[in-house]
Amino acid sequence: MSTYVFGHTTPDSDSIVGAISLSYLKNQLGEDTIPSRQGEINPETTFILNKFGYEKPLLKTNYADENVYLIDFMESSQSPEDIAKATILGIVDHHKLGDLKTTTPLEMWVRPVGCSNTIVKQMFDYYNIEIPKDLAGMMMCAILSDTVIFKSPTCTKEDTKACKELAKIAGIEDYKAVGMEMFIVKSDVLNATKRELVLRDFKDFNMGGEKIGIGQLEVVDLNVFDTMKEELFEAMKELKIEGERHSVLLLLTDIMLEGSQLLVLSDDIEKVENAFEVKLENQQAWLAKVMSRKKQIIPFLEKQF
Amino acid sequence: MSTYVFGHTTPDSDSIVGAISLSYLKNQLGEDTIPSRQGEINPETTFILNKFGYEKPLLKTNYADENVYLIDFMESSQSPEDIAKATILGIVDHHKLGDLKTTTPLEMWVRPVGCSNTIVKQMFDYYNIEIPKDLAGMMMCAILSDTVIFKSPTCTKEDTKACKELAKIAGIEDYKAVGMEMFIVKSDVLNATKRELVLRDFKDFNMGGEKIGIGQLEVVDLNVFDTMKEELFEAMKELKIEGERHSVLLLLTDIMLEGSQLLVLSDDIEKVENAFEVKLENQQAWLAKVMSRKKQIIPFLEKQF
Repeated sequence: MSTYVFGHTTPDSDSIVGAISLSYLKNQLGEDTIPSRQGEINPETTFILNKFGYEKPLLKTNYADENVYLIDFMESSQSPEDIAKATILGIVDHHKLGDLKTTTPLEMWVRPVGCSNTIVKQMFDYYNIEIPKDLAGMMMCAILSDTVIFKSPTCTKEDTKACKELAKIAGIEDYKAVGMEMFIVKSDVLNATKRELVLRDFKDFNMGGEKIGIGQLEVVDLNVFDTMKEELFEAMKELKIEGERHSVLLLLTDIMLEGSQLLVLSDDIEKVENAFEVKLENQQAWLAKVMSRKKQIIPFLEKQF
Repeated sequence: MSTYVFGHTTPDSDSIVGAISLSYLKNQLGEDTIPSRQGEINPETTFILNKFGYEKPLLKTNYADENVYLIDFMESSQSPEDIAKATILGIVDHHKLGDLKTTTPLEMWVRPVGCSNTIVKQMFDYYNIEIPKDLAGMMMCAILSDTVIFKSPTCTKEDTKACKELAKIAGIEDYKAVGMEMFIVKSDVLNATKRELVLRDFKDFNMGGEKIGIGQLEVVDLNVFDTMKEELFEAMKELKIEGERHSVLLLLTDIMLEGSQLLVLSDDIEKVENAFEVKLENQQAWLAKVMSRKKQIIPFLEKQF
């Protein structure tokens, strides 16, 4: 029996860096843990790992009879299929309280902040453990990614504080420039299939018994999608059928305009329209100021189910 | 809309003191919160409140449209009936991850320690907020109660550390003597009806869809129950029928012998026997070294369902 630290099924930078940073902290505290991941690494995360000289965590999708720490999620829909057979020792997360259960007491560090790595930074401070320079750089990038360089409504004072302290440890003065560099990498949507794009940051939610998949792509210029909407809808349609999903939503977020183009395939379009008080045209709507799936999409959609 | 801080349905000292201590901390941090309780106060808690000069928290059982912080529980079976209509801002607890859900991100301070007030003490330290002398005394008592003066297998180094630090703030040198004084009060089982005794520290659990009620009484000498077993079973039978419970268990814990006499009424006696590897005689069994419902009863029973 080993102890693994990992994030949600379609890993983003926060969950990959978080697996590495939380595992490192636990090891420093005398536990023997292994960082892992449930899926492929996206281009932004690859950029971060390369920049700071870290390896990808181990790819592992089965966790029966293992001990696990979860980072950046607490929903069964984002868990390994055999999660009920694993022993959850702890959860570090910044989302809503999901539907996972345990049979024994556990450790939970959950805060309504913009990024899991902000919480991990607070844990390092709590235990008075030093953060290695390059790990601090990765954690800083995770915060800049999750908070869209502090522009997301999910961003809190705790996130900006943690990010600035991590930048200092990493010896990086212009951390916003690193953030922009990262988002330009993230904006490269031309070297991937449309299916890969929809799945790049895709999460399933259980809303009133229905499976709702919601993807998000954050770019510095929304125009890159102009010629590929039809193909994106094709990929969404595939995912809707394959996964027996009630709805598949895709948020195309323009981080400069600070809003999102919403693409919708749903068995009940009205629920989506009511949730965001919009009328869809060509199964799309522009949602001004909407940048956060967690804070500006899920709670409103969930109320409809 | 107000913000309330409260513990589980049948409050014990940890959940009453926790409501007061967590509410005080939140108020110091600039939030406006009110400590409350879901039910009547037990004799041990009355002793603690009187000793340190605190009032009972407000009795309140409906929380629709209110903001709430939960302390010492995260199970719907121990929640107000309208919990789904409240907004859970945070949870401070030391139990297993239950079945509550939220639609928005929240704050969770959950640790596998012996007492919720140990976690609240750590929160005071984290925020660098001073604990008033008498509040520290109450928090110390809550820890001594939940850990059975450090004898329970749930007791951790963090609990003893927090308890000793709180005793120092409270100006109490012989904290173990205060603990014994408290348990002698708790051992007075003669001035209550048998129904009150069974309900004094009673919690319902959902195990595989079945409702299981488990009470516990901790005394310094088990012999006090010798003449009242039959009446205790009568009271348990009432609760089993009224609540449509699959099983009602009562643990009579002798804190000096460090073990528990288990009383059982169940639709499936075998499940209980298998859980603890005992043969019941007259619907009873002696469980040596068993002092913790959370750690030594629930996980084993749950596996049977």
